[in-house]
Amino acid sequence: MSFNLAEGAKRAVEDLKELAALTADENGAQRVAWTPEWQKARDWFKAKAEEMGAMVTIDSAGNQWAKMEGETEEAVAIGSHLDCVPNGGGLDGALGVAAGLEVLRQYHKHGIKPRKTLYAVNWADEEGARFGYSCLGSSAASGSLNIHELMGRSDVNGVKFEEAVRTYGVEPANMLDAHAQMDARNLRSYLELHIEQGPVLENTDKDISCVYGAAGVERHSIEFTGQSSHAGSFPTGMRQDAFLAAAQSALAFKEIALKYNAVCTVGQVRVEPDVVTIVPGKCVISLDQRTIDPDDLKKMHEEARQVVEQASKDHGVTAKWGKICTVAPQLFDECLIELCKAVVEEQIGEPTAMYSGPLHDAVEMASQVPTVMMFVMSEGGLSHCKQEHTPDDKLEKGIQAFLWLVDKVVNIGGI
Amino acid sequence: MSFNLAEGAKRAVEDLKELAALTADENGAQRVAWTPEWQKARDWFKAKAEEMGAMVTIDSAGNQWAKMEGETEEAVAIGSHLDCVPNGGGLDGALGVAAGLEVLRQYHKHGIKPRKTLYAVNWADEEGARFGYSCLGSSAASGSLNIHELMGRSDVNGVKFEEAVRTYGVEPANMLDAHAQMDARNLRSYLELHIEQGPVLENTDKDISCVYGAAGVERHSIEFTGQSSHAGSFPTGMRQDAFLAAAQSALAFKEIALKYNAVCTVGQVRVEPDVVTIVPGKCVISLDQRTIDPDDLKKMHEEARQVVEQASKDHGVTAKWGKICTVAPQLFDECLIELCKAVVEEQIGEPTAMYSGPLHDAVEMASQVPTVMMFVMSEGGLSHCKQEHTPDDKLEKGIQAFLWLVDKVVNIGGI
Repeated sequence: MSFNLAEGAKRAVEDLKELAALTADENGAQRVAWTPEWQKARDWFKAKAEEMGAMVTIDSAGNQWAKMEGETEEAVAIGSHLDCVPNGGGLDGALGVAAGLEVLRQYHKHGIKPRKTLYAVNWADEEGARFGYSCLGSSAASGSLNIHELMGRSDVNGVKFEEAVRTYGVEPANMLDAHAQMDARNLRSYLELHIEQGPVLENTDKDISCVYGAAGVERHSIEFTGQSSHAGSFPTGMRQDAFLAAAQSALAFKEIALKYNAVCTVGQVRVEPDVVTIVPGKCVISLDQRTIDPDDLKKMHEEARQVVEQASKDHGVTAKWGKICTVAPQLFDECLIELCKAVVEEQIGEPTAMYSGPLHDAVEMASQVPTVMMFVMSEGGLSHCKQEHTPDDKLEKGIQAFLWLVDKVVNIGGI
Repeated sequence: MSFNLAEGAKRAVEDLKELAALTADENGAQRVAWTPEWQKARDWFKAKAEEMGAMVTIDSAGNQWAKMEGETEEAVAIGSHLDCVPNGGGLDGALGVAAGLEVLRQYHKHGIKPRKTLYAVNWADEEGARFGYSCLGSSAASGSLNIHELMGRSDVNGVKFEEAVRTYGVEPANMLDAHAQMDARNLRSYLELHIEQGPVLENTDKDISCVYGAAGVERHSIEFTGQSSHAGSFPTGMRQDAFLAAAQSALAFKEIALKYNAVCTVGQVRVEPDVVTIVPGKCVISLDQRTIDPDDLKKMHEEARQVVEQASKDHGVTAKWGKICTVAPQLFDECLIELCKAVVEEQIGEPTAMYSGPLHDAVEMASQVPTVMMFVMSEGGLSHCKQEHTPDDKLEKGIQAFLWLVDKVVNIGGI
């Protein structure tokens, strides 16, 4: 063991508090990507990494890579993101970055050269809070970024994407160069510590978990079109109520979710004309379906289509589907999963493992190098808000286990 | 019979076309109350009535009363409203006013002094399109107007109610004087011809109907509060999805409507935060319930509350009700209903009678004097839009029957 786990975990938690003091206000964390507050966090990351003897470079997509040379060129990357949603929490992303910095600190402090080269990574714009594109930096590094989708987009204040990223030294046309740059780094594994952002661990009284993959997503809009009519003069049996078709569908989506032990969410709902005395002639909803099994995801989507067809028939309306996005389920690396589960078992007595519903930078990385994640519980499952919280002792437990995992990955040959 | 029914009906239809030529554009009728286009329609009404020897006065609420003296002071009022919604239809309100003018014309043309004094009335602001208060003029005349609700209200352009009505010579503080002014008119009955604004007559292949009352209304907002959570990380069984509670309630409201052969409408729906990847923590809907039977209306409302309670329990949310308005069901005058049904039977072979779902000026009048309405079919049930239409032959059939009804009411003693 190269690390002092207990001391390292305490230091990482202190780092998180230092970062919060620097970049949060009374409404929460304000490290939205491509803003001065975010730059503050990046400057903080750079200074910390350099204190530990690492060399920090920025790739063409704005990702920060803090490199510590090891005995071999084979490299392990450890990271997450410092950007957050507006009025966000102090842990989402920041925890994983602080853990990466702590790895560097442990080697630096104990004067040990790691067996493999290390990179602590701070991915740029994981949240997509300003331009609506999640995992921007990591998708550039993985090569999956569709830059054409982003060009010309504006934020709510009308600032163009191109303009915003150029302010921080990123040239949109060159962003995908980050892919070749990462290829040259000889990465053999990628590790990410993150808060769960859900209530599962808390409710099963577990503080940490191995994460063996991330759910795939089928995300669509559904537009129901019926006929607007007068709420007083149109008999019930003759109505073509677009909202009732949407309502029936939404309830049936929940049954699909239960059947597959998965999730289906109707998050957006709009009716037209949205008047008290008029039967809605139109209703547009969003549907987000997620699960880890690709076959299940396919079936869930097919059944959602059947449900919508039936609801449309029952209420005399038509339905039109529009794809928002689809993401294939991503399983992480089997060998790293086994190592991670073993560490989790050492720490909490059980080899707890779960898959992530939310997307993470690790999902982008998993297509490129063997990857695994570890989750720490989130109190109340809350995230993306200032109430996001994990008690210090549980945070430390997670960081300790994660440092332990890193130590194993760095020191075991062949992975 | 004092009238030439066929000729009168044709003339009234011509009047409607004349009015449309004067006040409609390519988007429909533009006679919104308290606007220059509406004043044009009022000037047209005054000129027409005066042509027929009537004397036109305006009461304190802006209602126009065209008086034709009869053999007695006992009076019959016939009317409806010339105001409409923006981009409205040519028949809603205008039909009933044109019928009133035609009654005057028939007596004038044939040189007959009516047995009772006649008033053709053009009520001010039935639609409430600009300041959100329906049946403004007729409710002032009936004495039910709550003027305090209106004071200080602004239209979408920020023009205050007080300012708008003063432009047309109405002093808000004096509007309720219209009640005493109407009392002095010695009215013995009120008759109103209107389009159905629904599809019932067309679908039962009937062109006209006696209207024996107007539905009562229970109109409320319902705010469901659950817990916003991440669409990916929150398990289905742990969610408190406010939208699903609203959806379940809306579908159950429809069952209530079917059970009581009535209507229940969810016209407005808003979810928060309205984000694709977030389970709605809040959902606010409107509920409009209508039927003619006061006991049924009470039961329908009670059952709606039970439904909401159950849905809230099923989805782990809370619900808060807010009253928008309630209107008691209004049955019209039994004697006038019998006369009206007899006329309808003469005209179409059946004594068809129905109640109105929408409110009308006649509902205000019914609390003051014996009242009845007659409906003419609406093609496709469409109203409040430029597509509002009734074929000329059916319009004429309705106007003929209505003139016949007026003739009976004017000539029969004791009513």
